[in-house]
Amino acid sequence: MNGAHSLVKTLLASGVDTCFANPGTSEMHFVAALDQIPGMKCVLGLQENVVTGMADGYYRLARKPACTLLHCGPGLANGMGNLHNARGARSGIVNIVGDQATYHRPFDAPLTADTDGMARTVSQWVHTSTKSEELGRDAALAVRAAKTYPGQIATLILPADVSWEEGGIVADPIPPARPPVVDNYAIENAARILHNSKNVLILLAGHGVLSEAQSLAWQVASATGSTVMADYVTSHLARGRGRLQLERIPYGMETAIKTLSRFEHIILVNAKGPVGFFGYPGMPSEQYPSSAQLHTLTRPDQDPIEALKGLINELNAPEVELPDPGVRPYAASGKPTPEGLAQTIAALMPENSIISDESISYGRGFYKFTHAAPAHDWLHLAGGAIGDGMPVATGAALGANKKRRVINIQADGSAMYSLQSLWTQAREQLPVTTIVLNNSKYNILIGEYTNVGAVPGDTAMSMLDLGNPGLSWVNLANGMGVEAAQARTLEECADLRKSSFNKNSPFLIELMI
Amino acid sequence: MNGAHSLVKTLLASGVDTCFANPGTSEMHFVAALDQIPGMKCVLGLQENVVTGMADGYYRLARKPACTLLHCGPGLANGMGNLHNARGARSGIVNIVGDQATYHRPFDAPLTADTDGMARTVSQWVHTSTKSEELGRDAALAVRAAKTYPGQIATLILPADVSWEEGGIVADPIPPARPPVVDNYAIENAARILHNSKNVLILLAGHGVLSEAQSLAWQVASATGSTVMADYVTSHLARGRGRLQLERIPYGMETAIKTLSRFEHIILVNAKGPVGFFGYPGMPSEQYPSSAQLHTLTRPDQDPIEALKGLINELNAPEVELPDPGVRPYAASGKPTPEGLAQTIAALMPENSIISDESISYGRGFYKFTHAAPAHDWLHLAGGAIGDGMPVATGAALGANKKRRVINIQADGSAMYSLQSLWTQAREQLPVTTIVLNNSKYNILIGEYTNVGAVPGDTAMSMLDLGNPGLSWVNLANGMGVEAAQARTLEECADLRKSSFNKNSPFLIELMI
Repeated sequence: MNGAHSLVKTLLASGVDTCFANPGTSEMHFVAALDQIPGMKCVLGLQENVVTGMADGYYRLARKPACTLLHCGPGLANGMGNLHNARGARSGIVNIVGDQATYHRPFDAPLTADTDGMARTVSQWVHTSTKSEELGRDAALAVRAAKTYPGQIATLILPADVSWEEGGIVADPIPPARPPVVDNYAIENAARILHNSKNVLILLAGHGVLSEAQSLAWQVASATGSTVMADYVTSHLARGRGRLQLERIPYGMETAIKTLSRFEHIILVNAKGPVGFFGYPGMPSEQYPSSAQLHTLTRPDQDPIEALKGLINELNAPEVELPDPGVRPYAASGKPTPEGLAQTIAALMPENSIISDESISYGRGFYKFTHAAPAHDWLHLAGGAIGDGMPVATGAALGANKKRRVINIQADGSAMYSLQSLWTQAREQLPVTTIVLNNSKYNILIGEYTNVGAVPGDTAMSMLDLGNPGLSWVNLANGMGVEAAQARTLEECADLRKSSFNKNSPFLIELMI
Repeated sequence: MNGAHSLVKTLLASGVDTCFANPGTSEMHFVAALDQIPGMKCVLGLQENVVTGMADGYYRLARKPACTLLHCGPGLANGMGNLHNARGARSGIVNIVGDQATYHRPFDAPLTADTDGMARTVSQWVHTSTKSEELGRDAALAVRAAKTYPGQIATLILPADVSWEEGGIVADPIPPARPPVVDNYAIENAARILHNSKNVLILLAGHGVLSEAQSLAWQVASATGSTVMADYVTSHLARGRGRLQLERIPYGMETAIKTLSRFEHIILVNAKGPVGFFGYPGMPSEQYPSSAQLHTLTRPDQDPIEALKGLINELNAPEVELPDPGVRPYAASGKPTPEGLAQTIAALMPENSIISDESISYGRGFYKFTHAAPAHDWLHLAGGAIGDGMPVATGAALGANKKRRVINIQADGSAMYSLQSLWTQAREQLPVTTIVLNNSKYNILIGEYTNVGAVPGDTAMSMLDLGNPGLSWVNLANGMGVEAAQARTLEECADLRKSSFNKNSPFLIELMI
């Protein structure tokens, strides 16, 4: 058995049965092994940032890692933006990077690069296999690292000769480490603060914003008069009817500071102290008052359920119903507005939809109007590197076994980063409805520019404007085999959405905003 | 004066007057400075690998560095594939990466990354500015590094507060170091070998394949009965009438080994000993006989003209005419073939055209049929990371001041890596004619797969085939504002090409092969 065979068999034995790939010459023995060993679903992406972004979206829904297959250092580099985002989302990925044969590396052939150095910038675990005999064990360790709670990027670098040489040994799965135990003192401390203080914020992030943790946090808040919010940087929120009407800390620095100004204590549940996305002249980094105290109930690598249950127990907090989100909104009409679009999304989304939200500036207020939608999952850009909305939507559809409708609300500038995702959606016949918000500019940056100086001049606009020439998203989608249509009103957008929800295939709506 | 102003003024003073950009929030003070200081041409790319690839193409033609403007570590990561290629091409780029404000970095906001670590994997020079007062000097040093012969990637990391704080000082240009002097012993040694031995190959790469060096190498070869060839990995060859009919060492390992088998000595002119692109089972890494001796006349960082002139002097080699390339081919007709396409390109290309060749497997034999075309420059992928053909074509058109026709011969799979380039071509109204070779597969990999095993099965083909759904390059180009048409015969392709050569705007031909 060659190394590649032992690798594929070990991955399958460890429960990794989906491979997002864009292979090259050095990966051909791996590809050949896939032909001979049944059980691995292979999904091709036409650029590596699509590949890695799909693996992120897959993990968020499937809650188990997929593997990738990338080609040498530069192939890894192409996918690093979305690995950075996946790391921010704390997704688990077994990131396999084929590389030059061990003996060929000293010759510095063109694709030779510091693959290990690149991988370290976006991975929690990096290992280069050097012997076919050890590849199975290395793969089992990589899967273990990827599964380590709540999920990690584990990069396994695979020189071509380690794939093709004989001597491969299939390794048994290695169970991941348990999350570090919850600190009883942290629970007691949080209970004391919640008991004694007013103006306490319980800030949720990571697994703390999933359904069960929300209910438990609400139970704590109801018993103590504290407030519950979600971190702005959140990869996956459970939302809609049956879930808490959580709001995120606003993106804008001034609004965030104002929102948090009244809190004296912040109890962090898998969250960090909230800071600005960027530093701004004359502004602090922190969004919370300098007088406020931060208390860590759980770090991101700990189980929030156990801790919140402990806190409820400590407080003797009674069970409580979640607040009712009110009446489901009606679809709005007329010229598109953020509020109208959000209402229409809430009005029309099927039960159990998945929203992949890379709406950037347009979508900042979407939450308020979608609390009363049916239960759904809302996915965000968690690392700040634009270009994950479309790949995450694609991977999420596969992570949900194509059984749930995915709605990708997508800013146009960010969409151009990884538009190749549409082709994979068409190839795999995925139930993804994409709404591209076509405003023909990097609107967020025009806002940021005005914070800096005055109105952007010609030179600045040459870097901020996407309108010359205008992008036709209908043509772009059609070019990759995805049906598409343009909408200029919310009614047109709603009609297109309704008809797309009846199809088991992707559809793109270009909404002119 | 703030830091950003001192940076822009220093760049202009140092002769850097073109900026390829995809900025974000942390770059807004730089963008604002560009509005206030005239003289910097700004070119927007809709994804960073387009931005860096354009800077590479620009350098190859303009022979002076442009700067880039990228957003934080992940923006750099997105552009690293083509920085890797630019490094392989030995292009000079002042690679400016905006980053978190110095005081904000410890807070680990989402876009915080190991920007320095990323940059080191693709740069010869990396520096993070930490004070506005020093930014001008840092910029002058970066330009110096980028201009260091034959060209280097100089990455200047620019924390936002270093841009916006006052105290900036404009720095005078710092001249780059002279190339290390040519080694007289190396010249004498080469002369002795050329004098005493048969079966000597003079292998040219880097600046050794430009026009003057070719003629000098031919003068040496004519006087000594040696052979002249170009390295396979070559970024920029002067070709056509008035230039030497140079062939490159073939890509295929067996063919390359056969081609080089008769040589006992290889004299390296800015080249390295030729090795395979990859290692293959049972094959050596080197393409030259183990008995052959390698002799370095010049390293890639030395001036080949000086050395070749010294060698001519040492050998008393007489001046000699370059061989006549024969009659210019006629345009071919019928179903597309590599030979027919090459002939038609040679038949129709305007004098002084620029070819950006990322034709991968289809174009391996193009040279033979294009020696008798008018004088032209031929650009290749020099780092092996696919996705540079379109960005390099775009940047080359700008590097040649839009005055020369650029013909981009482009494989479809590679084209999908950086198709956003077409939008910049439309925006800047560049004279680029793109011929996308649509075969709907990663043909090179199907070849490599058959080297490994047998015929690719269903799983392998799911990773190697681009035909389901088929890509429509006409739609994709139109979606980005570029006129396009499909051709199924060489005549149709020729007619479209001729009409595109009369336009000062981009045009894309989707050639079904």
